[in-house]
Amino acid sequence: MEKKYTIATLGSHSALQILKGAKDEGFKTLIIATSDRIKFYQRFTFIDDFVEIKSYTQLLVAEKKLQNKNLILIPHGSFVAYLGIDGNKKITSPYFGNKNVLEWERNRHQQLRWMQTAGLLTPHVFEPKDHIDRPVIVKSYGAEGGTGYFVAHNKKDFTHKIKSFLKKHYLVQEYIIGVPMYLHFFYSPITKSLELLSCDRRYETNVDSLGRLPLAHQESIDITPSFVVVGNSPLALRESLMPKAYDMAEQLIHASKKLIDKRGLWGPFCLETIITPDQKFYVIELSCRIVAGTNLFIDSSLYAAFFYSEPMSTGRRIAREINIAIKRNKLAEILD
Amino acid sequence: MEKKYTIATLGSHSALQILKGAKDEGFKTLIIATSDRIKFYQRFTFIDDFVEIKSYTQLLVAEKKLQNKNLILIPHGSFVAYLGIDGNKKITSPYFGNKNVLEWERNRHQQLRWMQTAGLLTPHVFEPKDHIDRPVIVKSYGAEGGTGYFVAHNKKDFTHKIKSFLKKHYLVQEYIIGVPMYLHFFYSPITKSLELLSCDRRYETNVDSLGRLPLAHQESIDITPSFVVVGNSPLALRESLMPKAYDMAEQLIHASKKLIDKRGLWGPFCLETIITPDQKFYVIELSCRIVAGTNLFIDSSLYAAFFYSEPMSTGRRIAREINIAIKRNKLAEILD
Amino acid sequence: MEKKYTIATLGSHSALQILKGAKDEGFKTLIIATSDRIKFYQRFTFIDDFVEIKSYTQLLVAEKKLQNKNLILIPHGSFVAYLGIDGNKKITSPYFGNKNVLEWERNRHQQLRWMQTAGLLTPHVFEPKDHIDRPVIVKSYGAEGGTGYFVAHNKKDFTHKIKSFLKKHYLVQEYIIGVPMYLHFFYSPITKSLELLSCDRRYETNVDSLGRLPLAHQESIDITPSFVVVGNSPLALRESLMPKAYDMAEQLIHASKKLIDKRGLWGPFCLETIITPDQKFYVIELSCRIVAGTNLFIDSSLYAAFFYSEPMSTGRRIAREINIAIKRNKLAEILD
Repeated sequence: MEKKYTIATLGSHSALQILKGAKDEGFKTLIIATSDRIKFYQRFTFIDDFVEIKSYTQLLVAEKKLQNKNLILIPHGSFVAYLGIDGNKKITSPYFGNKNVLEWERNRHQQLRWMQTAGLLTPHVFEPKDHIDRPVIVKSYGAEGGTGYFVAHNKKDFTHKIKSFLKKHYLVQEYIIGVPMYLHFFYSPITKSLELLSCDRRYETNVDSLGRLPLAHQESIDITPSFVVVGNSPLALRESLMPKAYDMAEQLIHASKKLIDKRGLWGPFCLETIITPDQKFYVIELSCRIVAGTNLFIDSSLYAAFFYSEPMSTGRRIAREINIAIKRNKLAEILD
Repeated sequence: MEKKYTIATLGSHSALQILKGAKDEGFKTLIIATSDRIKFYQRFTFIDDFVEIKSYTQLLVAEKKLQNKNLILIPHGSFVAYLGIDGNKKITSPYFGNKNVLEWERNRHQQLRWMQTAGLLTPHVFEPKDHIDRPVIVKSYGAEGGTGYFVAHNKKDFTHKIKSFLKKHYLVQEYIIGVPMYLHFFYSPITKSLELLSCDRRYETNVDSLGRLPLAHQESIDITPSFVVVGNSPLALRESLMPKAYDMAEQLIHASKKLIDKRGLWGPFCLETIITPDQKFYVIELSCRIVAGTNLFIDSSLYAAFFYSEPMSTGRRIAREINIAIKRNKLAEILD
Repeated sequence: MEKKYTIATLGSHSALQILKGAKDEGFKTLIIATSDRIKFYQRFTFIDDFVEIKSYTQLLVAEKKLQNKNLILIPHGSFVAYLGIDGNKKITSPYFGNKNVLEWERNRHQQLRWMQTAGLLTPHVFEPKDHIDRPVIVKSYGAEGGTGYFVAHNKKDFTHKIKSFLKKHYLVQEYIIGVPMYLHFFYSPITKSLELLSCDRRYETNVDSLGRLPLAHQESIDITPSFVVVGNSPLALRESLMPKAYDMAEQLIHASKKLIDKRGLWGPFCLETIITPDQKFYVIELSCRIVAGTNLFIDSSLYAAFFYSEPMSTGRRIAREINIAIKRNKLAEILD
């Protein structure tokens, strides 16, 4: 028996994981990809249908033409990056997740307000009038895979570097000395279950190459550190820190219902944290959709065996949620 | 048919892995957890029974009350950290592993004697009267997840830093320049098989963040390096180094029977090594129970497929050993 | 029904993965190992047959004696390292892969020509007469697990270090500032399918320990950086970089048919790249056989689920290819 729905996404970011997961859950799959990538996605037999577009913004035209296909669109990091919030809101196909969350995620100051309302520990933010008295990281708005970042170690360094920084909207955040830990959660509004499925850290060029350069070379070679994400590497989290991780995720969901709308946040999301030597999580950023770090776990997420007896990626977990909702006749509750 | 035994542990460290593995092997499972963590552990349906305690030392009272449950207690890193050796010895429930090993593991000087008797290469240890002529790492006694460590690059640096070091019992060890590699073994005294199941390195805050800090920042920001373990990352070991790894593990087991008692070391243990450019393993520490690095492999250990056709974590391997012992009527041989 | 062929390899590098994969695909397995390693390999029950040799060069004698066993030899990194190209060419047993590729892989200048003919981006190479105007890495010929490398940050540093460098044949390559990403491919000349199965980075002593050393220590301790590979760690590749990765691999296969011979490159191979902040792949080296980084994925390669419903290591993929070829009566097409 053929499933009624076709799970679709944009050809980028975590599309392979999403569509592989959808196929494993019994759905038909469709990808909307730019001309230069269509051939690449055709390598994978778990994708049933291919829709070619010339540029990402054409997604809006394409999805409207596909009304008869009974699509459910699964957004990922490229949706906001390429279409903006307005573009996402114009999507007419059923869309997995709450579109009202997008603005709160995109605007760094609103995101900060959300995190603080949830009681999460966040790095100090410097307002334009503030005196910068410690190392800072400057981040432009939007999820652009780590571009548009720079680090300044003091006021003078900041003043110098900001002059050549081309972004208008940015946040000046205290640079926390600690190790990055990205926590991949899934929250089901149907079963009310919250699951930490896996963890990772980003693999960034060129900062992740600095540590391999001996001092003599670092002194002789002028390197501007950059944070362009080109991959991810897996991590396990110390078990005694897991209760706190779950608490943070719950508080965030709870706050989303107060601040954003009644439905709040659901589906996959990520708390991007820095853990300091006193074992505190500083949350430096939120991603309220599937993150690329979950691509490490296509075969099975690190902690998924705690919840599922079959391999369960975050992509498959999304399709599973749709299946659960269909069975319980609650599909409208998880779509927007 | 219900199994006769309930596998139990303390809610921390690798409890989830241990109890998930026990459930997969058909056992009933029970967790003894402090009040602040009970809710967290209740998220996991593979844990059948929950016993709340107010502090870790109450484990001793709790386990005595559970005599009718036919418990087998599986110790992990938190057992010695929170109860001490005396506390562990006072446990009356059947306990997986040899309690006599605990002292040899805990006391850094005895551990060193054990490793040297086994013929393992260890970093030079400086006695109080010795002249410190190279970089050293100073380690307090006990498994405290990487706290109570410091590095000094010469005699002067050591003399300065030891003044503000609050621990009484510590070891001054040569700092070996090389990469860490933690080797996770399991030894079965029933089948006499030795298995290298996986490898990892610790993920430590803040030392694992230093490499991402450009020189200019390291020069401008005063950072005291710390070694607090907050996670783990997976590694494969070069195959040509595996025979040596197995040899070291066998020598250690052999020496344990001479030094400690007739039964010696069994179950999961970890050789914590630094590999130098001449491909030598310096063993810097032993852990004679399941280590947190195995939490990376809940779904299946890196090398487990060499030995098992189903997913096999170290936690499940322990439960498997208990099953093997039960079938062969040799349970007493692996308990203490 | 017993398979007609026995899959064999030399006891080193990725022999365990290769033979485990062969056993999973239903073949008999045989290892040819030096005396000091026979005992180690006997630990693994998926190896059916053991042939002891005194030194690696004795492989040639040993394999000739095994003509009646219907061997298929699977080469790995140790084959060229220990036997040289001539040794490999003298092998009379059926050999998986194209021996003509070996010279193009081994000679760094020919390898460079191959990569450039394929249109791959490669670091600038300095000829003896050239002025060295940037940081360079000096690499001796041959796959020796990262030994025989050094980095020089300028002309003066190079001139100083080359004096004590003992290798005759080497390449002076621009040192690219970016992060390493090793791409593990498999190409089937039977089905014409190309598969990116996994990615890794090498774990090298001592360079991968430098990042954990605080500045004060790096300043006080004189460390000569070395690149000896002792392990590997897993990575996922950013999805938007995957189309380019596949293109590079296809171009390389295409160029191999023009430059080397009609059959060109097939089976497992690895593009060893550095990714720069502008998201370009610099290909620093090719390995035209199974690489040790795939040992991370004995249980299942990171991206294997895209192509296979059962766990699929690179080792098993080789055996699967042999099975496919046998079924289609095309075995000669993949052997040399």
